[in-house]
Amino acid sequence: MLRFISQSSSEGVTEQSFTLSSSFDDIPGVLWSPDAATGTRPLIVIGHGGGQHKKAPGVEARARRFVAEGGFAVVAVDSPAHGGRPQSEEHSRLIAEMRARFQTGGDATPVLAELHTLIAGQSVPEWRAVLDAVQELDHIGTGPVGYWGVSLGCALGVPFVAAEPRVRAAVLGLSGAENAAEAAEQITVPLEFLVQWDDEMVPRAAGLALFDRFGSAEKTLHANPGRHHEVPLFEMDSSLRFFARHLN
Amino acid sequence: MLRFISQSSSEGVTEQSFTLSSSFDDIPGVLWSPDAATGTRPLIVIGHGGGQHKKAPGVEARARRFVAEGGFAVVAVDSPAHGGRPQSEEHSRLIAEMRARFQTGGDATPVLAELHTLIAGQSVPEWRAVLDAVQELDHIGTGPVGYWGVSLGCALGVPFVAAEPRVRAAVLGLSGAENAAEAAEQITVPLEFLVQWDDEMVPRAAGLALFDRFGSAEKTLHANPGRHHEVPLFEMDSSLRFFARHLN
Repeated sequence: MLRFISQSSSEGVTEQSFTLSSSFDDIPGVLWSPDAATGTRPLIVIGHGGGQHKKAPGVEARARRFVAEGGFAVVAVDSPAHGGRPQSEEHSRLIAEMRARFQTGGDATPVLAELHTLIAGQSVPEWRAVLDAVQELDHIGTGPVGYWGVSLGCALGVPFVAAEPRVRAAVLGLSGAENAAEAAEQITVPLEFLVQWDDEMVPRAAGLALFDRFGSAEKTLHANPGRHHEVPLFEMDSSLRFFARHLN
Repeated sequence: MLRFISQSSSEGVTEQSFTLSSSFDDIPGVLWSPDAATGTRPLIVIGHGGGQHKKAPGVEARARRFVAEGGFAVVAVDSPAHGGRPQSEEHSRLIAEMRARFQTGGDATPVLAELHTLIAGQSVPEWRAVLDAVQELDHIGTGPVGYWGVSLGCALGVPFVAAEPRVRAAVLGLSGAENAAEAAEQITVPLEFLVQWDDEMVPRAAGLALFDRFGSAEKTLHANPGRHHEVPLFEMDSSLRFFARHLN
């Protein structure tokens, strides 16, 4: 059940905080839409990065542009073990192990794959439940759905996009998604895939290998110089145009 | 000396055929500009692909869009040994050798590098002379210059962009430009670089290696599935926006 907690408006964009009660636990989320919106519109799900949450600055900035310039609605929720959500012992153990490997320069890939498999097992059904609930709202409706997520948002996004036929187009990247290589092959919708050429967290070859594996006939890799968190701003313009092309 | 041969207009775009007399030989070219244009505007040089010419369909389609939608002027000339231009014995020998290697599945890279070095030695000064002449025209003027060229247009474009400070932004790709690796390092202007993921003529690694080598702080690699000649149409939109961002 979707329960709205607060609502505000700024520069033409209405922001509604909500909680969705699920069979797992309560999922805190935010829905952005054009002020005074009525009727059906495309909906973009944004999956945040590791250690972030539903209203991390990069999430909110994208959401507001997608709404203000594209007329879309955007929804983001705290991923399992993120934001204010509880961490199980297994979450905590894997997150500590991942941090230790990054600090010592060890190979974090197998730990990340295990952590992402654990989280995705919960996030995929949660996000599908979020879609069910949000698309019942009068000002959202059952229009086409897009997905935007990089880094953790890609590792969780790949199995979500593969499992959810309502998703018609996705922007992914900054991940090898070693947890979900087979799911990548099942994806056939248009993709834009981001690679940071000097990514200190994801080996270049891992990103290229994931791009190679997607089943989509239309998939474009956008690679830019810089480290993991240095995706250039013009890629936000590109995401917006990509969604406009495929969801309108 | 620039001598106009013919002029026509269609859908708001004026096309002027010309011949430029140079110290090498007469260079046939085409200049596209908005109808009734006056004053200075950005100018885009398009370098055609191997075996093509100044009015190949892909060149003309791009030129007309850049003019009609971007308000730019566009110039293209027949590259040395292309279009109606004479081939020296060395041109003919290298072209025959290149074709033989492609047909037998041999390694064409060293022959291509030799051929492109030979042609670029002539095309770089020619294109600079074309810029000199065209920018003297009242409806072009000395505005910023862009370059668009893939395949042969990249192999000749890399040394041209490196040598010509008037070029402020370039779209390149579909080539390893083995003739011009050192020139690539000298390029510092913003680049968009195209790779065809299943290119049957250019090994994927060669394209990625060239992208790696460019000195530009802003460079974006766009990779798409498909063979050498299957660059998706939406990349034309992307080129147009890229030039609009950097030349206006």
